[in-house]
Amino acid sequence: MSLRWIGKPIPRQDAWTKVTGEARYMSDLSMPNMLWGRVLRSPHPHALIKSIDIAEAVACSGVVAVLTHRDVPGLNAYGIVVQDQPVLCGDKVRFVGDAVAVLAAESKEAADHALGLIKVEYELLPGVFDPEVAMQQSSPTIHAKGNVLRHSKVHHGDVEGAFADSAVVVEREYRTSRPISAFLETEGGMAMLGADGVLTVYCGAQYPDRDVIQIARALGLERDKVRMVSTLVGGGFGGKDEITVQIHLALLALNTKRPIKLVLSREESMVTGWKKHPMIVRMKTGATSDGTLLAHEVSIISDTGAYASLGGTILHSAMEHCSGPYRVPNVRVEGHCVYTNNSISGAMRGFGVNQVTFAMETQMDILAEELGLDRLDIRIKNGLKDGDKGALGSPLVTAMGPVQTLQAAGQTELWSQRETYKAEPSRPWKKRGVGLAAAIKGCGLGFRMPDFGAASVELLPSGFFRVRVGCPEIGQGNTIAFAQMAAEVLGCSVDQVEVVTGDTGETPDSGTSTASRSIYVAGNAIIDAATKVVELVEQGISARLVVDVEEVELGEAEVRAGGTALSYLDVAALLLQNGQTCCAAGRFDAPKATEEVPSVYGLPHLVFGTNAHVALVEVDTLTGQVEVLQVSAVSDAGRVINLQGLEGQSEGGTVMGMGYALTEDIIIDQGMVRTLNFNNYIIPTAMDTPPISTTVVEVVEKTGPFGAKGVGEVVCISITPAITNAIYDAIKVRVTELPATIERVLAGLQGV
Amino acid sequence: MSLRWIGKPIPRQDAWTKVTGEARYMSDLSMPNMLWGRVLRSPHPHALIKSIDIAEAVACSGVVAVLTHRDVPGLNAYGIVVQDQPVLCGDKVRFVGDAVAVLAAESKEAADHALGLIKVEYELLPGVFDPEVAMQQSSPTIHAKGNVLRHSKVHHGDVEGAFADSAVVVEREYRTSRPISAFLETEGGMAMLGADGVLTVYCGAQYPDRDVIQIARALGLERDKVRMVSTLVGGGFGGKDEITVQIHLALLALNTKRPIKLVLSREESMVTGWKKHPMIVRMKTGATSDGTLLAHEVSIISDTGAYASLGGTILHSAMEHCSGPYRVPNVRVEGHCVYTNNSISGAMRGFGVNQVTFAMETQMDILAEELGLDRLDIRIKNGLKDGDKGALGSPLVTAMGPVQTLQAAGQTELWSQRETYKAEPSRPWKKRGVGLAAAIKGCGLGFRMPDFGAASVELLPSGFFRVRVGCPEIGQGNTIAFAQMAAEVLGCSVDQVEVVTGDTGETPDSGTSTASRSIYVAGNAIIDAATKVVELVEQGISARLVVDVEEVELGEAEVRAGGTALSYLDVAALLLQNGQTCCAAGRFDAPKATEEVPSVYGLPHLVFGTNAHVALVEVDTLTGQVEVLQVSAVSDAGRVINLQGLEGQSEGGTVMGMGYALTEDIIIDQGMVRTLNFNNYIIPTAMDTPPISTTVVEVVEKTGPFGAKGVGEVVCISITPAITNAIYDAIKVRVTELPATIERVLAGLQGV
Repeated sequence: MSLRWIGKPIPRQDAWTKVTGEARYMSDLSMPNMLWGRVLRSPHPHALIKSIDIAEAVACSGVVAVLTHRDVPGLNAYGIVVQDQPVLCGDKVRFVGDAVAVLAAESKEAADHALGLIKVEYELLPGVFDPEVAMQQSSPTIHAKGNVLRHSKVHHGDVEGAFADSAVVVEREYRTSRPISAFLETEGGMAMLGADGVLTVYCGAQYPDRDVIQIARALGLERDKVRMVSTLVGGGFGGKDEITVQIHLALLALNTKRPIKLVLSREESMVTGWKKHPMIVRMKTGATSDGTLLAHEVSIISDTGAYASLGGTILHSAMEHCSGPYRVPNVRVEGHCVYTNNSISGAMRGFGVNQVTFAMETQMDILAEELGLDRLDIRIKNGLKDGDKGALGSPLVTAMGPVQTLQAAGQTELWSQRETYKAEPSRPWKKRGVGLAAAIKGCGLGFRMPDFGAASVELLPSGFFRVRVGCPEIGQGNTIAFAQMAAEVLGCSVDQVEVVTGDTGETPDSGTSTASRSIYVAGNAIIDAATKVVELVEQGISARLVVDVEEVELGEAEVRAGGTALSYLDVAALLLQNGQTCCAAGRFDAPKATEEVPSVYGLPHLVFGTNAHVALVEVDTLTGQVEVLQVSAVSDAGRVINLQGLEGQSEGGTVMGMGYALTEDIIIDQGMVRTLNFNNYIIPTAMDTPPISTTVVEVVEKTGPFGAKGVGEVVCISITPAITNAIYDAIKVRVTELPATIERVLAGLQGV
Repeated sequence: MSLRWIGKPIPRQDAWTKVTGEARYMSDLSMPNMLWGRVLRSPHPHALIKSIDIAEAVACSGVVAVLTHRDVPGLNAYGIVVQDQPVLCGDKVRFVGDAVAVLAAESKEAADHALGLIKVEYELLPGVFDPEVAMQQSSPTIHAKGNVLRHSKVHHGDVEGAFADSAVVVEREYRTSRPISAFLETEGGMAMLGADGVLTVYCGAQYPDRDVIQIARALGLERDKVRMVSTLVGGGFGGKDEITVQIHLALLALNTKRPIKLVLSREESMVTGWKKHPMIVRMKTGATSDGTLLAHEVSIISDTGAYASLGGTILHSAMEHCSGPYRVPNVRVEGHCVYTNNSISGAMRGFGVNQVTFAMETQMDILAEELGLDRLDIRIKNGLKDGDKGALGSPLVTAMGPVQTLQAAGQTELWSQRETYKAEPSRPWKKRGVGLAAAIKGCGLGFRMPDFGAASVELLPSGFFRVRVGCPEIGQGNTIAFAQMAAEVLGCSVDQVEVVTGDTGETPDSGTSTASRSIYVAGNAIIDAATKVVELVEQGISARLVVDVEEVELGEAEVRAGGTALSYLDVAALLLQNGQTCCAAGRFDAPKATEEVPSVYGLPHLVFGTNAHVALVEVDTLTGQVEVLQVSAVSDAGRVINLQGLEGQSEGGTVMGMGYALTEDIIIDQGMVRTLNFNNYIIPTAMDTPPISTTVVEVVEKTGPFGAKGVGEVVCISITPAITNAIYDAIKVRVTELPATIERVLAGLQGV
């Protein structure tokens, strides 16, 4: 197949306005007569609410509404899977930041002032901050149903026998940190009640269609009275997949009948934003003397904080990916996801896979070392191939990329010439090391989860084509990829295609922009719709100009019909003005694994992207500081739709995984968040970013749109263990707890 | 047929935002980084341009661009029919207000200041201000081709013989004035060049699709590089059917690459706006002794001012309607449309029919008086019926309403009890009279003019339906009528239908919002599209839910399918998410008369609306002041779609026709416009507006949407002669020159 647009580095359509500052993000929005909202939040990690007195705030000049749990007309709870998080707490608070009241005022200043006048009387309860303690019967319970949100067990094969047969068994405990998405744009939005009675919420979000369900349910409205428009998203990463400010905004707009805006401060965002689940991962891995993996036993304890959100699903994702990109015939996994009073955890790029891959890739390095094998060889030997079974025993029937990806990683100069790179540290007291790691990450929602794409494509009177699709652009660049895929099918130039995403009033629900799924499912739906539109145009032109359908061809700038050529503007006029419909809807159902993994809902996945990272680090042996000097990334996303887009994801993902490896961690001390801003929550900046080169391995997935798979998450996973493995290579210190802070590295150097 | 929405007084969807001031008209628009434009205009009615010096203006602080005819990249001319009006004059100017240069500056003040610094050297030419003088060979010529834009002659029957057979022949000369649309919102707009290279012009306009052609032609651009969006229109009336500021805006945006706004001052609008053509109408009408019209000879001289615009077409429209709503078997008409240096004339509500109807309806009153017949009886006797021939001899095959409309006018209390109404003037020196008149006005563009409607209807993911149609809403209320017609076909509530009009990028070209055509042609196209959407939805639901198509029924709030009922939101989700297209385009071709009237392009029309007015006036015999005390209007628009809309048109049209009768006139003295604002251009205000009652006569037109015809123009025509006839009834002074000012009435009373 000769492709015209697919794989080309077409500039993003939103690039110009975004780099010039012309683009209007949520923060830039305003409306005449607009109010400002604020949320009163709990200062305690666990407490009963004895009383709430709003009288003084209500009387305050400029205050238009002060609302509490009594004013929530519908279900006072939300949550993607389990609705256990109150819109506004009524009886108790469960974390520092839990919402207790919302208010609307004529100005930000009035809102700030009035917030301090709401009086809440609390009765403090003992908090639970250690997930293992939380699992004990004797612990205070955070929710009535107990502290264990999810407990799942899966095993396949003869695990005990396989351990007995193993030449070497490696057993370690890993602990991961609590990073946060730290998007540039904090959570916020605007809402207004229209004259038609429809409440519209404007908010940077990852799944407006589901947000509408949650808003309507909380407000006791019919869904068709709520519309949500995803504004430009200044960073999502999973942290805008759940409800953030939407219900609070909607509640205030409904009560005040005025436009309202609410934007969280950075501090509020750090306190109330969804963090990546910290996990305690205990792994026991057995292998033969030639390095063939035989047995794997894994225990995962995941801290979901005060509310469920996607905690159970993330646990299952971690379980499914617990052997990383490797084949292990005998596996036992047990997982617990537990409530604590430690803020809230939720979806964050990688969805549980970062934690277990960090553990597994450390195990692989230890196994190699103990068996005296090459770190790359042992990985390639065990790399998952089509027809293998995954960690939970489910057959892998799609295009698996680990072997090709690892082979390509081995061919990078950084790996093959690693001794040269390591040879000359910048200072005598610094040491260099090179680490390698790989990861897979399932694309899409997994077994039993409805996972489809829906889109429409339309020839407009302007001669442009419009693609409408639900999954929002959240900065990842799916819009340009959608345009390329549509243009490839339509035949026209990419510039002729306009893409609209994330507006529940306009775009067909196509699922969430998460789980590395939007290119895969929505892309396929766009192809379906565009194919139909081509037929409509061909048939229409054929009928109008009386030429054979075969003689009609949609080209880059014009449509040829027999001997004549028409501009798309003229084609649109000819057809639309003559009652010929040029619009079609498209649908794609993600194929599902043939069998479910018993007892873990949502598993297994069928399609996986693969990534490998090689990292060169330099460790200061006097201070413990780790600097990442260079990274080579290898990405298998199936057929690449947009090379710049893939590189952007790869580089961004690498830097995010670096932060996870070295610095990023929300520190919570007895329930109190201590890292409230970027002064002590340290994300890598441009100064910290090393040269990153990305190599593409296209293990084409035949069910993917033009062979593409998803890539949004897997790009950020293997970099973390590649760095920690490089640290070991440099200084022989095993990092088993993230992040590898200066203190921890120094302690390792000092043999503490 | 049982109708659910048609004929109901459904409130306009734009009512709330318009009455609260929330609606954003063109004047309310602004953009970041926006420039202000101004136009330098000729102070002379006729002059050669010897030189234009922009140097000082260019050097002026805050000035970004100063452009002259040299900067017009394409055809430096525009005009709907004849492109004879320069975008920017290069060699000569032909009226006071002719555009010579445009500039863009950072502020209005800077633009105003710089405008005064452009130096234009003129060589004055003798002007031509009398259309009859202009026709003489010896007159100075305004355009190279001569001063006669159009000269047309039509006759049918034996006119001389019929005059010989007539018992009475009335011959008079009538002169009509030069009113202007006087919309609340002057001409203006905004333009910007997008990053995609598309130039978008925002402007209140009546036919954006044609404006795009004119803009692209003048700028030398491909049409697909120009988009026009009609903003909310604060009054159109024909005065925004032609290019106003669009090309100037586009030129400045293209040159400055910045958003630009340009709004004419009221004075500029009065000087450069399109006026209704002043006409000299000479009429000779013969009738038998029982009042049967036998012969009619008409000469029309129409002053189109400096440029053609629609002058020729308007002349033909006047010729076609020269016998009013009456049957005359033998007719000769000759028309001249001539250039003068009297500003510019163009389309204005009524399109040439107001002038000749004023004349004809005076003739009818004179005939009745001379024959001693009742004024109503003579009209009913001669009223056009289906199967009659029109003034130019063409067969009338559609539903003609004059007889029914006149009969209903006769039944109004104001007419039947007219002696009572007249009996007691408010002061002894005042006299009262009641006048009656009727009018027809063709709907649509007439023979040989492509006259079609195109629309699309779509079920949106929100569960709402969107209608897209080119003809803009220009304040007349076609939007709500479109929504009602769509809802009637779809079965849903009117509230579920959203209508988008007047955006060349979004809405199919459906022709212009003029000529009383939009309800007729676009309405029919909407019905076509909506019918297809119903089929798509029925078939889709039938397939999805496995029920017979016959069991699927679209209802007001839900869709019933067998035993179940789904909300429209759920229907949209079910279909759109499953690749079922729910969008369709529709088309309607206006039926044409079976034969052309030889030699007059655009004639005849096929479908006509009818109106009659009865007016009660009181004339102050000391001052000559005429007050309209009460009006009864009778309207035949075929089936009424929206009663409030019809009443709104009827009342607005009545008041506009009152202004035409009594006060409105742009006074031009040797080419200089003397009426520059509403201090001496007098439009009726609410204080002047009498009680107006509207009676509806539904002479259903079977080709119309649900039987509707157009009504936008005919409502403003017969009121004018009804008032002048009432003046005669009161004081026996025949008004043959419009407007019937105090001075003219007093002169009549004094026998001058």
